[in-house]
Amino acid sequence: MFKQLEGEPRGERHPTPDVLERLKLNADGLIPAIAQQHDTGEVLMLAWMNREALDETLATGRVCYYSRSRQALWRKGDQSGQVQHLHSLHLDCDGDTLLLKVDQTGPACHTGRRSCFYLQVDNDAVVVTSDPEIAPETLYGKDTGQ
Amino acid sequence: MFKQLEGEPRGERHPTPDVLERLKLNADGLIPAIAQQHDTGEVLMLAWMNREALDETLATGRVCYYSRSRQALWRKGDQSGQVQHLHSLHLDCDGDTLLLKVDQTGPACHTGRRSCFYLQVDNDAVVVTSDPEIAPETLYGKDTGQ
Repeated sequence: MFKQLEGEPRGERHPTPDVLERLKLNADGLIPAIAQQHDTGEVLMLAWMNREALDETLATGRVCYYSRSRQALWRKGDQSGQVQHLHSLHLDCDGDTLLLKVDQTGPACHTGRRSCFYLQVDNDAVVVTSDPEIAPETLYGKDTGQ
Repeated sequence: MFKQLEGEPRGERHPTPDVLERLKLNADGLIPAIAQQHDTGEVLMLAWMNREALDETLATGRVCYYSRSRQALWRKGDQSGQVQHLHSLHLDCDGDTLLLKVDQTGPACHTGRRSCFYLQVDNDAVVVTSDPEIAPETLYGKDTGQ
């Protein structure tokens, strides 16, 4: 399916169910999903989806991942209140990665920072590049885990 | 290490080797790496790195991945000529994903398109959203594989 799509011109359309059932999930039935703020382009996080999480996200317009640590659906924001509304959903050329353009309410990161990518390699040092916008205790109470 | 970094303020620094050795690689020794064009914010692709690929990328400033299909280092552009120069490298909060801000020469995608994310879900249809900038035959000869 994805090999066939490679040669097609812009504007070509295929039924969504036919394409989604060909997604290449890993051995655990999961696919990585990049979340990007739709208007600023900031990459917020990477998480994982199973087919059920993807279907729910498309059906509701609110992003739902699969938590590998909890082994359960993870409706982003259920605990923290910081939800992601789906703006558009994109698949890559070989069908093994998703790109979600989202509208993120407040911080995406469980540390209270806007983006999870707040560490930057600066030659010999790794530098913290942002401060939390909201204290994690405010987001999660005493349990600051993801 | 990453749990400790969560509470630190902007500007805090830690030796790069100490942080990189704590990266959470998967069972295959790999970590997902998102490539984003540094100035436009366009997400170009997701690929994987092992520690050797990461070290080479930081040492040379030219992005090197690990090809899961070929099970070998994949110096982006060696075949196609479309290289990625590293602009900055970022780690996420729990040390299991990399974000590479890059300067991509020409198309990032093996199909000849600028970005690998050229398929978009539009309700009942998945739509091809861009055309190749360069024919894959020009990039790879008859072998259009990644």
